[in-house]
Amino acid sequence: MTGSTFGRVFRVTTFGESHGKAVGCIVDGCPAGIKLREDDINRELRRRRPGGFLSSPRKEKDEVRILSGVLDDVTLGTPVALIVDNRDVDSKSYEPIKNLARPGHADYTYFAKFGIRDWRGGGRASGRETVARVAAGAIAKKVLEKFGIRVYGFSREIAGIRAETDGEIEEVFQISEKSPVRFPDREREHLVIERIQNAMRDGDSVGGIVEIVVKGVPAGIGEPVFMKTDAYLAFAIMSIPAVKGVETGAGFESARMKGSEMNDEMFVEKGRIGFYSNNAGGVLGGITTGQDIVVRAAIKPTPSISRRQRTVNLNTLENEEITVKGRHDPCIVPRAVVVCEAMTAIAILDLMIMQGLVPRFL
Amino acid sequence: MTGSTFGRVFRVTTFGESHGKAVGCIVDGCPAGIKLREDDINRELRRRRPGGFLSSPRKEKDEVRILSGVLDDVTLGTPVALIVDNRDVDSKSYEPIKNLARPGHADYTYFAKFGIRDWRGGGRASGRETVARVAAGAIAKKVLEKFGIRVYGFSREIAGIRAETDGEIEEVFQISEKSPVRFPDREREHLVIERIQNAMRDGDSVGGIVEIVVKGVPAGIGEPVFMKTDAYLAFAIMSIPAVKGVETGAGFESARMKGSEMNDEMFVEKGRIGFYSNNAGGVLGGITTGQDIVVRAAIKPTPSISRRQRTVNLNTLENEEITVKGRHDPCIVPRAVVVCEAMTAIAILDLMIMQGLVPRFL
Amino acid sequence: MTGSTFGRVFRVTTFGESHGKAVGCIVDGCPAGIKLREDDINRELRRRRPGGFLSSPRKEKDEVRILSGVLDDVTLGTPVALIVDNRDVDSKSYEPIKNLARPGHADYTYFAKFGIRDWRGGGRASGRETVARVAAGAIAKKVLEKFGIRVYGFSREIAGIRAETDGEIEEVFQISEKSPVRFPDREREHLVIERIQNAMRDGDSVGGIVEIVVKGVPAGIGEPVFMKTDAYLAFAIMSIPAVKGVETGAGFESARMKGSEMNDEMFVEKGRIGFYSNNAGGVLGGITTGQDIVVRAAIKPTPSISRRQRTVNLNTLENEEITVKGRHDPCIVPRAVVVCEAMTAIAILDLMIMQGLVPRFL
Amino acid sequence: MTGSTFGRVFRVTTFGESHGKAVGCIVDGCPAGIKLREDDINRELRRRRPGGFLSSPRKEKDEVRILSGVLDDVTLGTPVALIVDNRDVDSKSYEPIKNLARPGHADYTYFAKFGIRDWRGGGRASGRETVARVAAGAIAKKVLEKFGIRVYGFSREIAGIRAETDGEIEEVFQISEKSPVRFPDREREHLVIERIQNAMRDGDSVGGIVEIVVKGVPAGIGEPVFMKTDAYLAFAIMSIPAVKGVETGAGFESARMKGSEMNDEMFVEKGRIGFYSNNAGGVLGGITTGQDIVVRAAIKPTPSISRRQRTVNLNTLENEEITVKGRHDPCIVPRAVVVCEAMTAIAILDLMIMQGLVPRFL
Repeated sequence: MTGSTFGRVFRVTTFGESHGKAVGCIVDGCPAGIKLREDDINRELRRRRPGGFLSSPRKEKDEVRILSGVLDDVTLGTPVALIVDNRDVDSKSYEPIKNLARPGHADYTYFAKFGIRDWRGGGRASGRETVARVAAGAIAKKVLEKFGIRVYGFSREIAGIRAETDGEIEEVFQISEKSPVRFPDREREHLVIERIQNAMRDGDSVGGIVEIVVKGVPAGIGEPVFMKTDAYLAFAIMSIPAVKGVETGAGFESARMKGSEMNDEMFVEKGRIGFYSNNAGGVLGGITTGQDIVVRAAIKPTPSISRRQRTVNLNTLENEEITVKGRHDPCIVPRAVVVCEAMTAIAILDLMIMQGLVPRFL
Repeated sequence: MTGSTFGRVFRVTTFGESHGKAVGCIVDGCPAGIKLREDDINRELRRRRPGGFLSSPRKEKDEVRILSGVLDDVTLGTPVALIVDNRDVDSKSYEPIKNLARPGHADYTYFAKFGIRDWRGGGRASGRETVARVAAGAIAKKVLEKFGIRVYGFSREIAGIRAETDGEIEEVFQISEKSPVRFPDREREHLVIERIQNAMRDGDSVGGIVEIVVKGVPAGIGEPVFMKTDAYLAFAIMSIPAVKGVETGAGFESARMKGSEMNDEMFVEKGRIGFYSNNAGGVLGGITTGQDIVVRAAIKPTPSISRRQRTVNLNTLENEEITVKGRHDPCIVPRAVVVCEAMTAIAILDLMIMQGLVPRFL
Repeated sequence: MTGSTFGRVFRVTTFGESHGKAVGCIVDGCPAGIKLREDDINRELRRRRPGGFLSSPRKEKDEVRILSGVLDDVTLGTPVALIVDNRDVDSKSYEPIKNLARPGHADYTYFAKFGIRDWRGGGRASGRETVARVAAGAIAKKVLEKFGIRVYGFSREIAGIRAETDGEIEEVFQISEKSPVRFPDREREHLVIERIQNAMRDGDSVGGIVEIVVKGVPAGIGEPVFMKTDAYLAFAIMSIPAVKGVETGAGFESARMKGSEMNDEMFVEKGRIGFYSNNAGGVLGGITTGQDIVVRAAIKPTPSISRRQRTVNLNTLENEEITVKGRHDPCIVPRAVVVCEAMTAIAILDLMIMQGLVPRFL
Repeated sequence: MTGSTFGRVFRVTTFGESHGKAVGCIVDGCPAGIKLREDDINRELRRRRPGGFLSSPRKEKDEVRILSGVLDDVTLGTPVALIVDNRDVDSKSYEPIKNLARPGHADYTYFAKFGIRDWRGGGRASGRETVARVAAGAIAKKVLEKFGIRVYGFSREIAGIRAETDGEIEEVFQISEKSPVRFPDREREHLVIERIQNAMRDGDSVGGIVEIVVKGVPAGIGEPVFMKTDAYLAFAIMSIPAVKGVETGAGFESARMKGSEMNDEMFVEKGRIGFYSNNAGGVLGGITTGQDIVVRAAIKPTPSISRRQRTVNLNTLENEEITVKGRHDPCIVPRAVVVCEAMTAIAILDLMIMQGLVPRFL
């Protein structure tokens, strides 16, 4: 659980630079006996892929190849290697700014860390890295489904517009999936689109908040005192590019609540324990309560903007100005939804296995 | 990095229940050659200890014993075992509610996970567990100081009252340390105290926001793509009892900003790279920029309240009502500050070592 | 699984120097619901303790205190902290050789690694460190017993005298336990004792081979391709002080066998798969076959000898001569048996848990 | 460090079945700034590849593709993904024995573990898996060379014939590399070849002993008390298919030595510490002494033999007989040499990094 590996038992190791030959991962610790076709993964990759008038014009087919760990469409329990080729690579627009540190990007920090960096399209720090997360997450979701666990994500807020939702999460999710910005509030959706388009026009960008709801997780998972469910999810989600904050349940709002408001009272009904509310977000003491797990992630506005910004030349150490061209989304929140789902699925599955709830052969 | 161990190279393994014989930890991977006396640790433990009119009346001296890893007050590079005895243990007030799940507590979830639980004072899920974190953090701080790195924490907000601060963090910190609620805004401090006292009177509790600032961390630490500095800090801090959210830099506010506002522009001055702002909170692409690292944690109101709440009997599975007596803080934010500092210090030191910046012998 | 922590799920973290205040460990990941008394551990510690005319005169009671993780003699699933005080500490005999590197010892290498070393009785590199392994192993054995798994160890060879055994391992083990040198061949035992006494008289020491047999492990445990059962056992056992080699099944002898001799042929009887032989030592492809697991460890002669040896002064970097006094065993094989059992139990339990065969609550 | 990942900081995660699409690995934690071309890896793969009249007729070109982590032939510090396609795959000879457990193979145990297995050419348990180890080892060797560290391997013994060597290891290695069986004793080489040919003729196979010598490792690496250099090497090497034993220095012979024979006496010459002998094999207390590290591995005879053997049908659970056709080496010792070198290089580099001796950018 370091560098490019996430997970303790269900372990995902990713690789790949934005403009390298491919991105991908090895998923180790996957139970045997799971039906798995390339299309199970491609379906999720398509959800993450840029598309429509509001996103990057980079055209990647993003079709995965499964190289190992699967025989006759069934997992073997051995490592599953997944590869997605980079095809529509165009490093030309990066050539002129090769030595400039793009503000809000990791150009300078990668250079500070490694003494060298891949300037082509952001290299390893590019959002393209998340293809591997989504691919691995697709496998995690397949396994979780066997246990009746579903991970739903949507845009809770974009550019300051908050989605008001009610009803079941399944329904909210369906609305979100039909929205070009994964925004589950049909009334306000046009406001969101307007603000994104305004940002585009201004050479600027906007951020938002992703919400993830996990249904069906039994009570009892999470490994205190450090690998608590919420801590582990925070780790998983905060590692996604552009995420600046993570909260569960009432989250930051809980700081302003009283104990008597925050505490979720309990009851027994037909021999089963229930809660009158879910301010905890499904986790108490780091262990799941059996309620929905609710997590939110703050996504910063896309750092690539075409406005003129002051920066430095990492080579000459001189002050310069930069205008980032390339192909970028003015708002990555809708695509980040899919990545947040993936990381959540991976973390939850890992904790399910640790709790001893997932046999080696399913 | 699971269960009761945190850290990859600088590894802290903790133990202890609230009303057991002792709490403590083993700190492995500590560099040799560090001056370390028990009092270095006791100083931090005193900062965490309850005290004053606004906190739990439990009286623990909280004096550590170093059992290994140190010879003639110098670390040997071998594991440092730290023990703090539990002395003022009084399980009597827990006897009557032995089988009741206290709302907002982990009673039910520990039971769901392990099929058994220590009902005495919250057992392993008690805030007392954090003694071990603070003790280990004291060692981490000692090592970080050798590199000019300092970790500062204070209450940014309590019970809805936000501390307005300006000036250098050192100064903010000094004010905070003199405040009974670690609140660095002298003008508003009385409002905070008032609200806490009101909560006490009402048998209720309040929460708040801790802010941590780390000065002196060089650019280049953090291990993308998963063990990013911010992700790792989120993991470390979210694992602290009562934390419901973590953010870095502009955090959740960044969701409402434009790219042109959020991006920190850069400059060169005398051959050194600098930034015009620090919305990133000192981390870009998961790697430090050399600026201050800024992290905030949302702390929920203390779940132990003396108000009547609806709950369940875990033994009989019947509905019951509960009034939590015991000895509790109406607001744990000031004490959580010290724990957040400790976890931050541990995580940052671990990343410093991974980057190869800390010799085995100092 | 590094430094002073062993295990991935059942994790043992040890601490302690030979002449420090105490040695001990934290056992994390232990299932809840196991009956555990201090005497369960003391029984194993007594087996390891020096005693009789053939071993070190250091007199340690070696009584463990359980500080956490157990309530009313039942494990809670939380970390179990174990402490054994060092009482009969006598560093005087080490004073004169404080700066000399004892040949065959880790004095020089600890100094090279950490730039500092605890010269008192070998410090962390002392065999006394193994107290913590045996204590943790006692817990592992308790858990394994629940699954009908038993770990047996004995001296297969001492000072060149090989024990000829036949019959069931339980019987071999009973004979061994009654022997002062854990040598299960009553006819040759006097030869062993004679050679040890001769070595003592000559101020010299002897080595031998420990054999471990594990009964009752089901087929299917082990985590290829790296954490194979045999590889993991080799790791566990080779980490014990004085072990210079590890082999499973036919071991080094297999290098001289033909495939047709080495391969264990198979059969089915009453629906169960069996083998005509066990040259594999119970492991094929790193996964257990369901047969007895057989491992042997080569133990070098005790490096502390009272003969004059050439060495160096680590302080002055001058050539010197040394005669090691202190309190030492002329042959540590009988005591190493207990440590090898402990590490085997820990490793096997860890693999059992990974395979999903051990519930969180037993 | 579990399943298909080896290493704590320099981490190798492998994938691939014998008759799947490809085998390969992701190498994470590799320092930046290392010159790395595909041919650096291919050179080592060629050393491992079957060839000549004494080995399997399977014809694989074994040419690696580097998919990430390298820009303009220089490592970036990011994960290096390596892929080697399986081309000459012929599963036909496995069809008839699809349900039979080949004696000495992992067919039964994989089935017992995962409830499913890849019957094509041994699947994940095939020796073909070691392609990924050798590829990763090639990178480790490149890095180690920067520090003047070289890993040499050769056949110390084959089919009971022991190679008598003298002179420097470099010379021994040169002779070995020119030998079709990597046997560095020209006088006895013909005996080895004769015995292998006899075994072939008889439809049988032979084993042997690989010896690895590492030159140039500084004193001070190794992470006691568990991740000792020798324990870690034992772990690394015992995980290689067909290895049944590992020893360092005097190894199993030390069990028959006296302390006065075994201990390596020391001296100082020109301010540098030296040893009069190397029975320790370069490791004391788990930490390197600065001498050559010497490790030996017992390799069992190839389990695939064309002789008739008794076995079971895993599907019908009936007794059957089997004759393994396929394409196999009558003796895999010469090829195992290269794999042992690779795992040694990976383990040593990992320990070098942990000791803080390898910068992030070289």
